[in-house]
Amino acid sequence: MRAAWTRLIRFVATDGRVLRGEPILPSPDFDLGCATEETKLQAKVIVGDDIYDTTGHTRVSDEVVTVKKLLGPLTAQDVDILRCVGLNYAKHIREAGRTPPPFPFIFFKPTTCIHDHNVDVEIPKIAQDDQADYEGELVLIIGKDAKNVALENALDFVAAYTAGNDISSRKLQRDPKLAGGIPQWGFSKGFDTFAPIGPALISSESVGDPKELLLRTIVDGEARQEEYVSDLLFDCAYLVHYLSQGTTLRKGSVIMTGTPGGVGAGLKPPKYLVPGTVMEVSISRIGTLRNGVKFV
Amino acid sequence: MRAAWTRLIRFVATDGRVLRGEPILPSPDFDLGCATEETKLQAKVIVGDDIYDTTGHTRVSDEVVTVKKLLGPLTAQDVDILRCVGLNYAKHIREAGRTPPPFPFIFFKPTTCIHDHNVDVEIPKIAQDDQADYEGELVLIIGKDAKNVALENALDFVAAYTAGNDISSRKLQRDPKLAGGIPQWGFSKGFDTFAPIGPALISSESVGDPKELLLRTIVDGEARQEEYVSDLLFDCAYLVHYLSQGTTLRKGSVIMTGTPGGVGAGLKPPKYLVPGTVMEVSISRIGTLRNGVKFV
Repeated sequence: MRAAWTRLIRFVATDGRVLRGEPILPSPDFDLGCATEETKLQAKVIVGDDIYDTTGHTRVSDEVVTVKKLLGPLTAQDVDILRCVGLNYAKHIREAGRTPPPFPFIFFKPTTCIHDHNVDVEIPKIAQDDQADYEGELVLIIGKDAKNVALENALDFVAAYTAGNDISSRKLQRDPKLAGGIPQWGFSKGFDTFAPIGPALISSESVGDPKELLLRTIVDGEARQEEYVSDLLFDCAYLVHYLSQGTTLRKGSVIMTGTPGGVGAGLKPPKYLVPGTVMEVSISRIGTLRNGVKFV
Repeated sequence: MRAAWTRLIRFVATDGRVLRGEPILPSPDFDLGCATEETKLQAKVIVGDDIYDTTGHTRVSDEVVTVKKLLGPLTAQDVDILRCVGLNYAKHIREAGRTPPPFPFIFFKPTTCIHDHNVDVEIPKIAQDDQADYEGELVLIIGKDAKNVALENALDFVAAYTAGNDISSRKLQRDPKLAGGIPQWGFSKGFDTFAPIGPALISSESVGDPKELLLRTIVDGEARQEEYVSDLLFDCAYLVHYLSQGTTLRKGSVIMTGTPGGVGAGLKPPKYLVPGTVMEVSISRIGTLRNGVKFV
């Protein structure tokens, strides 16, 4: 599908309005996630209620405004639900000595997890004791309702890609004493602000083949995760196909495709999120999603 | 909280309109789930967009109409997400020889699972091979946004109760060959139509203490599940409190509280859902939710 925009940002303009727009890139390889007030990034305002509209009702207008502060491209109200995949990078599975699963391992996050670019993730008390962790991920945005989609048509339902960070609480996720003997993926990863995404939606036409994307996660300046999306065990098309079996993936649904090796829990010794940690999830052709951490 | 209605039904009226209404019970103990066209059940039309409104904008009008066909009280658009609890009836856990978990085991269903009363649940191909199952459950409806709610105030956020059926696919849920070694609760229970709820929302004031409710599930006329809600290991108030930690339970969220012993997979031999199976989840003071089964 072809949305009205190539890149979509949501931002506070210098006149105070919160708008969506098509950014005017200062250079072809400009990283939108690095735009600050000093950048004076300009954008053409996007008008229309449905950002996935392909009928011409939603369009990039001629009104050019200056970006004061970049937000995340989507709010909780824009998203239907987040479907997430565990254990999906092949090298990471082999490194960990695990057998590749025959089907994707799926869990859900509620829309209240959606969080802006360039603001702090909020770790609640229940997850503050040496367990909060990052997971850099490629994110797909479903642009039209999809059900029982054939593999060969699956990417037609993807409107855009962006970067995401699947914030996780490792003890709640894995410790049998806390999780009742069954891994608690949904609850442990489902707190408010636990899914920052951004910095922009990049249309699927503009991204091209997602397998060519390189994903990197940098934490406090240190590269922790680095892998090509081609290493995905279940690729983007397969995930849309698999998840749409007997299930309507509604327009505005989000799919987080999984994380490669290098999460904080896997380091020796482990390094968990603490107040002030800065996380950057950087994906080629998409840009850098940056978030701090605070305990609340 | 106190909504504008005592019982809320959604229905097709004899004039063809789809409406919400306060039913006029033919007798105090009338089971709304048994209303058919022949019953000529009457209802006062509820007007207003927000059924949880407590400011007077939403109200029970004086317009009385006749119910032709009862639907479910909520649609997917009315619901934010469904949070569900596994292993929550104490006797069932002991029977199964399990240790009671220290915290609730939580999983999510997407809103596309929501399904009407008195229509067939649709089992997709992936779940048709001796694995589809029922789970009768008491369901809570959150009526105002809840976050970090104290235990003693938790039930103030519950607008209403209803009955629900947590349709499940046991192989996808439990078979390591299909689930990648990790139980797939979310995906296996998340197909379209896999959460019928109804027949009506019953306001929390009208229900009183939920511990006194008796839940029964009858399948093809055979009583399969029968337990008082007082047997819940984590009761309704605790669930709202626990789930609201660091998390906004948005108005319109649904909590399915878990199922007692007697599911089809636990029978010897097991009895799974097949086309034509009739499932009834009947809860005292609430009524009977009835659904057939078809394979699609």
